[in-house]
Amino acid sequence: MNIILLSGGSGKRLWPLSNDIRSKQFIKIFKQEDGSYESMVQRVYRQIKAVDPEATVTIATGAVQVSSIKNQLGDDVNISVEPGRRDTFPAIALATAYLTDIEGIDPEETVVVCPVDPYVEADYFKALKGLSDQAEKEEANLVLMGIEPTYPSEKYGYIIPKDSNSTSEVSTFKEKPTAEVAKEYISQGALWNGGVFAYKLKYVLNKAHELIDFADYNDLYDKYNTLTKISFDYAVVEKEEKIQVQRFNGQWKDLGTWNTLTEAMEDKVVGKGILNEECDGVHIVNETDLPILAMGLHDVVISASPDGILVSDKEQSSYIKPYVDSIVQQIMFAEKSWGNYRVMDVESESMTIKVTLNPGHSMNYHSHNHRDEVWVVLSGTGKTIVDGMEQSVKAGDVITMSSGCCHTVIAETELKLIEVQLGREISVEDKELHKLK
Amino acid sequence: MNIILLSGGSGKRLWPLSNDIRSKQFIKIFKQEDGSYESMVQRVYRQIKAVDPEATVTIATGAVQVSSIKNQLGDDVNISVEPGRRDTFPAIALATAYLTDIEGIDPEETVVVCPVDPYVEADYFKALKGLSDQAEKEEANLVLMGIEPTYPSEKYGYIIPKDSNSTSEVSTFKEKPTAEVAKEYISQGALWNGGVFAYKLKYVLNKAHELIDFADYNDLYDKYNTLTKISFDYAVVEKEEKIQVQRFNGQWKDLGTWNTLTEAMEDKVVGKGILNEECDGVHIVNETDLPILAMGLHDVVISASPDGILVSDKEQSSYIKPYVDSIVQQIMFAEKSWGNYRVMDVESESMTIKVTLNPGHSMNYHSHNHRDEVWVVLSGTGKTIVDGMEQSVKAGDVITMSSGCCHTVIAETELKLIEVQLGREISVEDKELHKLK
Repeated sequence: MNIILLSGGSGKRLWPLSNDIRSKQFIKIFKQEDGSYESMVQRVYRQIKAVDPEATVTIATGAVQVSSIKNQLGDDVNISVEPGRRDTFPAIALATAYLTDIEGIDPEETVVVCPVDPYVEADYFKALKGLSDQAEKEEANLVLMGIEPTYPSEKYGYIIPKDSNSTSEVSTFKEKPTAEVAKEYISQGALWNGGVFAYKLKYVLNKAHELIDFADYNDLYDKYNTLTKISFDYAVVEKEEKIQVQRFNGQWKDLGTWNTLTEAMEDKVVGKGILNEECDGVHIVNETDLPILAMGLHDVVISASPDGILVSDKEQSSYIKPYVDSIVQQIMFAEKSWGNYRVMDVESESMTIKVTLNPGHSMNYHSHNHRDEVWVVLSGTGKTIVDGMEQSVKAGDVITMSSGCCHTVIAETELKLIEVQLGREISVEDKELHKLK
Repeated sequence: MNIILLSGGSGKRLWPLSNDIRSKQFIKIFKQEDGSYESMVQRVYRQIKAVDPEATVTIATGAVQVSSIKNQLGDDVNISVEPGRRDTFPAIALATAYLTDIEGIDPEETVVVCPVDPYVEADYFKALKGLSDQAEKEEANLVLMGIEPTYPSEKYGYIIPKDSNSTSEVSTFKEKPTAEVAKEYISQGALWNGGVFAYKLKYVLNKAHELIDFADYNDLYDKYNTLTKISFDYAVVEKEEKIQVQRFNGQWKDLGTWNTLTEAMEDKVVGKGILNEECDGVHIVNETDLPILAMGLHDVVISASPDGILVSDKEQSSYIKPYVDSIVQQIMFAEKSWGNYRVMDVESESMTIKVTLNPGHSMNYHSHNHRDEVWVVLSGTGKTIVDGMEQSVKAGDVITMSSGCCHTVIAETELKLIEVQLGREISVEDKELHKLK
């Protein structure tokens, strides 16, 4: 089975764990059997591999997520990187071209496209296989998943099937309705449209060539930022005559708010936290080292990260966005392809960060124009290259770098260091990349 | 007026702002006219000086609080340091001997003793003056303040006066009663005993010599830890025949729990914090750099410090102690006489702290047996002395110190630095002081 996972943009509705550069799918919140925690993207990837170890998984996403994906899934995962934001039709067209032109998959093969962030069980992935098998038959050009509604939601579009068979032709699509109208749709046998569908690669390739003038993947990639923004639903799905829907009645949850996310949590406390006996319906998700003590609270979520602390009534948590927008702050924690960094201290003319490099990884070779830097190695071994000079480093070693000097550090084992940045204009933009000779 | 302020021990009931080494009286929570915040001890000291600029204030406290007191009140304040914990009679006897023998005050003068942590207004300090003036007359050996009760509290002892005059002889004392019994006392004209009283210095000196064999202040200080633990109430007050009480009917609050403390807060938010409109009766006291967002909460206190995060129903907050006792942690922030330090990162074989030295101040000249250290100066100017070698330092300078090497830093201007400690056994006990030649 070929799968394209759409890994969507940033969002603040799960602040302080999601922010401008960190999407909710990367929050490690789901307990695994060994007691450690995994993120939505790790969970979905693991689930796919459990159902179909041979599955080819390609993640379609923006450049900003590449580091997090590699950090969480390893370097071997296929990533179709979108050079900009152009809505879902260009994204799916690009990913489809990536499958044929880069991964070398036969255009006669089918692919299933689905979002990376539904909270589902193994039966969902078996259903994806069902979509793929159905598309294989070419009875239709597109085979959609129709999720059997559990309540008259206003959050989803609806698919009206022609009949109530497990596979049916689609009669029509309905936009997100009011709850009242949703009830009516459901009484007519309508299904939720979860944005999950299968097709033969050649079908979307042909659609793409109809709408866009391009030669191949590389050409499409190069002109990506000039493409018209248009959704796949609007460009393709709603216009397609030969279209089927397959019913799915297993668990399918959208964990987009703290209220829904905490429902899916196995433990009430992730990270350091204590709930007293008077607490009821309280969840703590704590990514900081600070212990959290909660007393006498009801239906409250508490979350802390290097970005901030949220304490919210669970219902109220869905109204978080404007408040988070009002908090202007720099990114305090980031996962990178080579490891991660955390801002520990910010002064007017200095910034102190902690850098963790994964074994075998290194930073880019770079320099800064407006700041000096000092590294103090806390643990691990590796080597630094400063203006071309190599040096082995271990715990306790200090490296000083004046502005303009080119530098990198390469980790042998996991390597942790404190970086002190000093200067009047400290900014992430002040960074020039260099080639290592 | 001479005043002895009793600055009591540590406590965890205002965790995470109070802890084993930081008492509640040092929390900066009260807004001043210029918008900055002051602590209880700063507030009381300022209030005394406003009522009587000539007042001689002596703070009686344990060694652990000396750094915080000097940091908050400056070096000029008189401190009678108790070498151990011996209850209030030895403490008051020592402070009284300090006044005569160290500050050189005539034993014929009076002194007022009061706790450092009541939340009061200017009229309270005028009432202290009243106690002092009354003690001056020598109608009685002790003149107590009797606070007119506002409710039948179970938290205080009661004083039954002989009559309802503003100054009266004391009929008897009552231990902390039940609310029912308190009502009865109040109907009989009883007053709260706030532990505030005035006497002539010679009176307590004589009592001390009756009960303890000592020559002078220095002798009493030297044998302090051998003294019997006994309260001033039990040793002196309850046995005294010539004893009067003066009524006080102004504001007098004991801010010992989060519930009572937040009642005295002018602002709902101290530090970085946002309350949405659905919050009601919510207070935030945030000493960290992390912004706090509170949504849809009622009668909740949220407090964050480098030690942890509390989110508690206000009523429930009085039951905090056992939960905090269960949180084993190192001290993450401390005020010292020379400035303060904050722990930023703890790894198995390293610890990174941020040190702020006040202008003109320095650390002790010291060494460590089991750890190396690196200093990176963030801002300010000063000099370091490492194994006797002096060096001027400024932002960006790096000083490396191997274990065993003696070192200190002396701030000219306010000086901030990052200290990275490296070693297998990092402990506050690993510190030897040395004389600077």
